[in-house]
Amino acid sequence: MAQELPSWTLAELAPLLGGELIGNPEQRISRPIEAGDSDEGGICFAESEKFLQLVMESRVGAVILSQQVPGLVANQIVHPAPRLAFAKFLHLFRRPLSISSGIHSTALVDPSAQIDPTAKIGPYVVIGPDSHVGAGAEIHPFCYIGDRCSVGAGCVLYPHVVLLQEVTLGEGCRLFPGVVLGADGFGYAPSPEGLMPIPQVGSVELGRSVDLGANTTVDRATVGKTKIGDGTKLDNLVMVAHNVQIGPHTVVASQAGIAGSATIGAQVIMGGQSGVKDHVSIADRVTLAGRAGAIGNVESPGEYFGLPAQPVRETLRQMAAVKKLPDLVKRIQAIEAALDKLSKS
Amino acid sequence: MAQELPSWTLAELAPLLGGELIGNPEQRISRPIEAGDSDEGGICFAESEKFLQLVMESRVGAVILSQQVPGLVANQIVHPAPRLAFAKFLHLFRRPLSISSGIHSTALVDPSAQIDPTAKIGPYVVIGPDSHVGAGAEIHPFCYIGDRCSVGAGCVLYPHVVLLQEVTLGEGCRLFPGVVLGADGFGYAPSPEGLMPIPQVGSVELGRSVDLGANTTVDRATVGKTKIGDGTKLDNLVMVAHNVQIGPHTVVASQAGIAGSATIGAQVIMGGQSGVKDHVSIADRVTLAGRAGAIGNVESPGEYFGLPAQPVRETLRQMAAVKKLPDLVKRIQAIEAALDKLSKS
Amino acid sequence: MAQELPSWTLAELAPLLGGELIGNPEQRISRPIEAGDSDEGGICFAESEKFLQLVMESRVGAVILSQQVPGLVANQIVHPAPRLAFAKFLHLFRRPLSISSGIHSTALVDPSAQIDPTAKIGPYVVIGPDSHVGAGAEIHPFCYIGDRCSVGAGCVLYPHVVLLQEVTLGEGCRLFPGVVLGADGFGYAPSPEGLMPIPQVGSVELGRSVDLGANTTVDRATVGKTKIGDGTKLDNLVMVAHNVQIGPHTVVASQAGIAGSATIGAQVIMGGQSGVKDHVSIADRVTLAGRAGAIGNVESPGEYFGLPAQPVRETLRQMAAVKKLPDLVKRIQAIEAALDKLSKS
Repeated sequence: MAQELPSWTLAELAPLLGGELIGNPEQRISRPIEAGDSDEGGICFAESEKFLQLVMESRVGAVILSQQVPGLVANQIVHPAPRLAFAKFLHLFRRPLSISSGIHSTALVDPSAQIDPTAKIGPYVVIGPDSHVGAGAEIHPFCYIGDRCSVGAGCVLYPHVVLLQEVTLGEGCRLFPGVVLGADGFGYAPSPEGLMPIPQVGSVELGRSVDLGANTTVDRATVGKTKIGDGTKLDNLVMVAHNVQIGPHTVVASQAGIAGSATIGAQVIMGGQSGVKDHVSIADRVTLAGRAGAIGNVESPGEYFGLPAQPVRETLRQMAAVKKLPDLVKRIQAIEAALDKLSKS
Repeated sequence: MAQELPSWTLAELAPLLGGELIGNPEQRISRPIEAGDSDEGGICFAESEKFLQLVMESRVGAVILSQQVPGLVANQIVHPAPRLAFAKFLHLFRRPLSISSGIHSTALVDPSAQIDPTAKIGPYVVIGPDSHVGAGAEIHPFCYIGDRCSVGAGCVLYPHVVLLQEVTLGEGCRLFPGVVLGADGFGYAPSPEGLMPIPQVGSVELGRSVDLGANTTVDRATVGKTKIGDGTKLDNLVMVAHNVQIGPHTVVASQAGIAGSATIGAQVIMGGQSGVKDHVSIADRVTLAGRAGAIGNVESPGEYFGLPAQPVRETLRQMAAVKKLPDLVKRIQAIEAALDKLSKS
Repeated sequence: MAQELPSWTLAELAPLLGGELIGNPEQRISRPIEAGDSDEGGICFAESEKFLQLVMESRVGAVILSQQVPGLVANQIVHPAPRLAFAKFLHLFRRPLSISSGIHSTALVDPSAQIDPTAKIGPYVVIGPDSHVGAGAEIHPFCYIGDRCSVGAGCVLYPHVVLLQEVTLGEGCRLFPGVVLGADGFGYAPSPEGLMPIPQVGSVELGRSVDLGANTTVDRATVGKTKIGDGTKLDNLVMVAHNVQIGPHTVVASQAGIAGSATIGAQVIMGGQSGVKDHVSIADRVTLAGRAGAIGNVESPGEYFGLPAQPVRETLRQMAAVKKLPDLVKRIQAIEAALDKLSKS
């Protein structure tokens, strides 16, 4: 673990990140840090007053800001998008999970499966009949790719990912450990002998550059497809039920759940632990705040909160009113008493 | 993937599904479709006005209905239970996940384990001491069956299922990927050195035909058994804590949680993200709507909603009243002003 | 499975548990039971009136109580902490999951990894470069320990645990199946080509004696560390996002979620399905009741409930008032009518 750490002078770093340096060009920077940490070899970014305050209370090698802040002790790199510039710096520190080239000797690949020669198939991987793995894809240990699946070029399947059957991934998807794609949708028909499983014979289709967080599950459709659009990102422990359609460039935070046949638009944001009822439709550019529960269609862009999900200002007004409710009860009692007196007088 | 697709004339299909044909007996049907999709080789079903409307706006080969609808362009198959008839058709399209007969050479089976000769044990499976696997069961890759477990005849364990120890499955259970049965219940006793784990020495017992969705967890009991009754179905990412008892033919949707020692009756329905507090008891035939939280016993059948869970009509009335609450505050202010005036006059 | 069961006379058992026997010293006890079960060879404990009542309605070999209860039919063991005494008894019934000594021949251990000779590495385990496994640790089948991870002495990783990279576990941690540590934090920066992943180059660090329940996920920090303190216990399906800091001796129940950069103090209790918003701080010794949602800092110890989380008494008062709200609306209508009459008279 003892190894030469990389470092850059600010004179080198500012152009690398595409920003303008205000400060000492000789200052050496060795690592990214969090705003608020003191580290003279560290660089952080500050997008808001709050984080700027944290930086001012600490000693850092440099800070990335959207505009110059006069009187700041720290060296500054000014960049129109500090978060993006910081992300560029972080790229220099990426150390992708190791995996060897080729197909590991312990991987079991069905003879009918087609594996691109540039794909990397780790140890203890199982790949079933009629499945494809595209160029440059990485399939880490203990992944299971079942029957008739297709993994696009450049996809990364971290250890312990399961694609059951008829699952298609576009290029450049990243699936974190424990992801399960293509399990049966949850559909049963009552019968005299109890609940009969309705066969789930549909598929799952992900667009390009979709990320799925650890232990997230996406069920196959009853018929047709469960679909997730290009560039959409799901966090950990998210549930996507059968026949759900999610548009492109949407973001779903952890533990959110989307019930069967719901439709989620493009550039939607779903907060943590939020939920969407089955067959409900959410328009493009809607934000559902954390824990929001959409039990009816949401048809206009904007932020929604509460159960049922309503425009956030309405929900906050109602919440504020509920806080005053016990007092209100007393005021009503007082009014009734006063009225009683008045009517008797 | 290019293969001859099966197809049926409606004259063949109607008796196969047990329905009565109204329409063209020569029409060929090749696949199930969703209501609303246009596909002249497709068949769907419509149980409600809403889905019937979708069918009327599309072109389909045939639709399964509970009674004849005059004037419908599409061919009709009339069946008393359209969903069940459609499920029958879907059965014709099932392509079970492939697995070879016998015990795969890479499976590690403890010498004391008993495997029925008709069971199929896939590659990279581990089976521990004193465990049993019954006739015709399928154990897919990367399953771990630990110590003293019993898997009933006809069970299917999809890839990546874990039974830790003392887990018993009745016949015909289906466990989807990532299911974990028999992890320790969450019990600790405070001690001067911190929280001491209370040893969890009980077991998990599933009845017949229980389905558990992907990444669902069922903990072993502290003492005694955590039990799930015959025919009960759990969706993905559900939590069943130690010593929970769930009755037969109950349905639990995704991300619902049942805390320690709670008792759930027969034919209960728990909606997505709902929860039941520890030691709480839910009567037979109760429905907890999505996100409902039962923090006290629910003793009568019916539908419940909200936190705390109350009869759904009461919760909806309260929610409607809360929506009006900010206005109500204004009305009370107006009343107070009017009273003030009156009392001064 | 037919084996000699252990048993003890109460004369033997009382001193073993550190309690005082009131009753028949010759009574034989063979197993722990739940309060309420009838079993003359069984022993249970009762900490509350409710459980004492259950014991009185059943026939048990003995019951552990914090003080003698006169007139009880059952034999009594009096101990100041009945739950701890019962836990001691349970220890006699523990049967740890079987695992052989040494490194199994099918385990793939990178040559640069350091494995203590007393550690047990089960079949189908993968351990990556520059990782360490400490003395006496148990790594069960299908565990993946990636790059530059460190597993402390005495840790138990149950089957199917994933440590991706730069994950450090203190001594004596227990990780249940399906746990995923070190997946990328959920951070993206908008760009003209869509959402760009912000590289997550930080790590995960667990203190000593941390337990993580089945399918729980803890993400690596963007920079710096996601940290969980000594003795902290997390239940199943819990989400800990990037850069979260959790103090020591904290307890987090199932399906709770902690969003990015939140700080949770020491000896905090988080109930099932509760949530903490990103960047929010929760003070030491706070209890968040089940389903509570902390959307602002909680600065004083005590119990909190509701969304937003408020002191439990306030939330309960508000909930009670909401229940009366539909009636309140009627009372306000009556007041308005009366006022109208008055003002016209």
